[in-house]
Amino acid sequence: MDAQHEESTNLAPCVIGVDFGTLSGRALVVRVSDGAELGVAEHPYRHAVLDRELPDGTPLPPDWALQVPSDYLDVLRRAVPEALTRAGVRPEQVVGIGTDFTACTVLPVLADGTPLCELPEYTARPHAYVKLWRHHAAQDQADRITALALERQEPWLTRYGGKVSSEWEFAKVLQVLEEDPDVYRRAERWVEAADWIVWRLCGTYVRNASSAGYKGQLQDGAYPSRDYLAALHPDFADFAADKPDQPLATLGAAAGGLTAEAAAWTGLPEGVTVCVGNIDAHVTVPAATAVDPGQMVAIMGTSTCHLMSSDQLGSVPGMCGVVDGGILPGLWGYEAGQSGVGDIFAWFVRTGFPASYAQDASALGRDPHEHLTALAAAQNVGEHGLMALDWHSGNRSVLVDHDLSGVLVGLTLSTRPEDIYRALLEATAFGTRTIIDAFEESGVPVRELIIAGGLTKNALLMQIYADITRRPLGVIGSAQGAALGAAMHAAVAAGAHADIRAAAHAMGRVRRSVHLPDSERSAAYERLYAEYRLLHDYFGRGGSEAMHRLRRIRVQAATRPRPA
Amino acid sequence: MDAQHEESTNLAPCVIGVDFGTLSGRALVVRVSDGAELGVAEHPYRHAVLDRELPDGTPLPPDWALQVPSDYLDVLRRAVPEALTRAGVRPEQVVGIGTDFTACTVLPVLADGTPLCELPEYTARPHAYVKLWRHHAAQDQADRITALALERQEPWLTRYGGKVSSEWEFAKVLQVLEEDPDVYRRAERWVEAADWIVWRLCGTYVRNASSAGYKGQLQDGAYPSRDYLAALHPDFADFAADKPDQPLATLGAAAGGLTAEAAAWTGLPEGVTVCVGNIDAHVTVPAATAVDPGQMVAIMGTSTCHLMSSDQLGSVPGMCGVVDGGILPGLWGYEAGQSGVGDIFAWFVRTGFPASYAQDASALGRDPHEHLTALAAAQNVGEHGLMALDWHSGNRSVLVDHDLSGVLVGLTLSTRPEDIYRALLEATAFGTRTIIDAFEESGVPVRELIIAGGLTKNALLMQIYADITRRPLGVIGSAQGAALGAAMHAAVAAGAHADIRAAAHAMGRVRRSVHLPDSERSAAYERLYAEYRLLHDYFGRGGSEAMHRLRRIRVQAATRPRPA
Repeated sequence: MDAQHEESTNLAPCVIGVDFGTLSGRALVVRVSDGAELGVAEHPYRHAVLDRELPDGTPLPPDWALQVPSDYLDVLRRAVPEALTRAGVRPEQVVGIGTDFTACTVLPVLADGTPLCELPEYTARPHAYVKLWRHHAAQDQADRITALALERQEPWLTRYGGKVSSEWEFAKVLQVLEEDPDVYRRAERWVEAADWIVWRLCGTYVRNASSAGYKGQLQDGAYPSRDYLAALHPDFADFAADKPDQPLATLGAAAGGLTAEAAAWTGLPEGVTVCVGNIDAHVTVPAATAVDPGQMVAIMGTSTCHLMSSDQLGSVPGMCGVVDGGILPGLWGYEAGQSGVGDIFAWFVRTGFPASYAQDASALGRDPHEHLTALAAAQNVGEHGLMALDWHSGNRSVLVDHDLSGVLVGLTLSTRPEDIYRALLEATAFGTRTIIDAFEESGVPVRELIIAGGLTKNALLMQIYADITRRPLGVIGSAQGAALGAAMHAAVAAGAHADIRAAAHAMGRVRRSVHLPDSERSAAYERLYAEYRLLHDYFGRGGSEAMHRLRRIRVQAATRPRPA
Repeated sequence: MDAQHEESTNLAPCVIGVDFGTLSGRALVVRVSDGAELGVAEHPYRHAVLDRELPDGTPLPPDWALQVPSDYLDVLRRAVPEALTRAGVRPEQVVGIGTDFTACTVLPVLADGTPLCELPEYTARPHAYVKLWRHHAAQDQADRITALALERQEPWLTRYGGKVSSEWEFAKVLQVLEEDPDVYRRAERWVEAADWIVWRLCGTYVRNASSAGYKGQLQDGAYPSRDYLAALHPDFADFAADKPDQPLATLGAAAGGLTAEAAAWTGLPEGVTVCVGNIDAHVTVPAATAVDPGQMVAIMGTSTCHLMSSDQLGSVPGMCGVVDGGILPGLWGYEAGQSGVGDIFAWFVRTGFPASYAQDASALGRDPHEHLTALAAAQNVGEHGLMALDWHSGNRSVLVDHDLSGVLVGLTLSTRPEDIYRALLEATAFGTRTIIDAFEESGVPVRELIIAGGLTKNALLMQIYADITRRPLGVIGSAQGAALGAAMHAAVAAGAHADIRAAAHAMGRVRRSVHLPDSERSAAYERLYAEYRLLHDYFGRGGSEAMHRLRRIRVQAATRPRPA
């Protein structure tokens, strides 16, 4: 940072974005005028994810994933002051603080916001803790929620692509009611962590429109009806009215001013504007300047989340949800996703990268992904003769079936690791194309694709996405997309920008049209995409139930004693 | 060898079996009374396989595979005397010599047996050389031979499962006629190498019933008709009558006595009985004592060859052929096969064995196959959740489609290399089961399975075959099955045993019921076999043409300039 820059920084109004991820929180100090990222600090959660036992050793069943709420407050205490110090920004320059959170991450609290798990009589009760987004033990409840909604033709079901996820609030809380009714009764509120952290910052509990819509099944101003909830479980009838209902707040609105207590944690002045809560993936959208209808942001990491706003309301098969103002006020916000992307590439490197390749990669100073990518880049479209289905972690969109699995077709004795690697890269791109097609076929146009997340650094992968989706690819210009987006919302809440669109234009960062589709390669991929769709529909739409049968056989086999 | 054994050996009548393989020939000295293997010697062919160029540098097109006939004579000169020396057997003890050969391996010769490629004016002419069994450049001719036979409903076609292979004599010679008509005309005979080597040994050209039937399309005493051949190509009309036709000889008959010249090569006395030629896989059948109807021998190596005799004549879909007396005189001899078996396991170790596994294997003193097998053995049937199709090298039986390819279904982020390895072992066993079922469904019962070849040493693989085929598995007791079988035929030709059945009882070696099916595992595999069959029929019987389209795309892509 040069002297001039430092001086202007020291004078300029700033905002702080705090991104609460799965394993840690990050604070980012951002200049309001142009979005310059001045300082960042990360603080890992002391208890990380509780998936085997509680802090006192109480064991947890499979598929559980809990967190400890005080770990979130430590991020405010540690990362915020450290980011300010690194940025060389004085607390008085800070005009607002915004946050984003994983979702649905939800916890039971008393009326004053005290987490149940902090009461001495509940420290050994698993259901009293925060249920992290990836707590997957409520599948049975989710299945019943979907089945009953289908049977009763509940109008909100189409807003979720026809299926309720086990990750969402109603499934998670119904599990609590059924397994630990005392915790259910004692909880005076069920709060999204995204809203709980804002409550801790400014003393006011407001529900953000995004979590309420995508994870809390609030549609057109109403929760699922009392009749419907009573049919799920008699004691669940008043859940929506009693536990989560709360005044709703538009994204980017001010929730209140920083309390004295929170000011002491963060080192910021009391009364600084606190923005309403938000979801991590969702705040990344304006950070990537995608504020117009039809601009889809794909956040590509271990999995991919697709987010897009539109002025069209459509019922897109298998989408995760559509929520009014769910991403940007005034537009329908759509969410879709692929459950395995970078995870699949990592799996292949872990299991299919031979010793001889490791030697070559090491001699060339490449990591395994770089090496496989370089080898894969040297071939023509279709030359490996393979077709893969990218369902190693199930299919989240458009089939919404977590019991599907990965496929490879076209193997020969000359198939090489780079061939399979490239086929897997391509399969995930075909998966994104399938989602885009589902949007378009539902009357929701997708004009542009902007990529965020760790996989943007793989140029071959990006080019494959451009060629297969036949769209120019933009790439987000920030490595801290979520924290930047949270900071931008803080700037809006503080009145420093008129709205999130203005904030996006001033503070967002994108490199447009970084990867352009090549017409020859796109044409070649079109033939392969037709093959992908045939295979996709055969295994995913009932042509063959082989994957479900193989999974059942696998689960049964795993329970028998193994050979000595 | 102890002194007593040595003495009896020195007095006992012996026979010599010479096995002409793809890369070398082996001579084995065997005691007539009990089949004791007294000495073995191997001699590699100097020119191995010519698949890039002739010895003078003349280049060869793709898919060609030629050999040099004088290399075969070197085996007689080197390996036979060396085996005798190692055995401590005097030449006078030898009562017969028998041979076996790869097939269809065929060469053009003059009327006296001189190979065309040895004439100075033909040394630079590729079509003048021996065409090895795996010469695959006559696919176009084979396709036309099949299509025309189908169109004309030629009665012999059902004897070959409905399809003529590019490896067989008519396809190979038609290619010569079309590509080098001068070589075709100059060749006074087209001889199977199996018969040519016997001709060299005893001066008499007799055609063995096995090669003539399986590879030369001789059925019920007749070759394909003159009309049919003329319709293939006008100049091909008289091929069967002119070039290969020759007195037929029963397997195990005497072809003549050793010439003075051959006696000088081998060090054996002139006049020693020379047995008629035979095919390498076929002589292994009596070596494994499988002389009764319904005893199937599977010779498992890089690929698998299934051989069985039966008193029933059936039309088995996709079999390679059924020939009267083709394996044992007086019974119908059936041949079927899997084009990729050990090759597929080797491919996986080459491409899917990670560095960390290589380290573990090395620390445990295991080779990669042993390591993967040990890990795979520790799981229950079905526990890996995978299903594979073993078509990495196409499918030879029952679909007879070399353009099919391998498949893996059921991959997840927890799939490990040993899971895929086991799924591949199992897929080849399902492939064998499919062949057995095709026999039984065609009214040709398969009572017992006896395994020969290099893969017999993998106990897990053998157990999987027993469980999946639901049959007790015997294992051949000799590491030199083919040479032993050739020697046994020599003993029959010399009159030392009444017939090949008697020779098999006296000299053959099998360990019966080494691997017994386990009823629980067999039942578990039955569910998985149903999945295999569904996948097999979907991709192999027209449910999806994806494999053929992917192959076409691959072939086209390979011809375009590659990315820089």
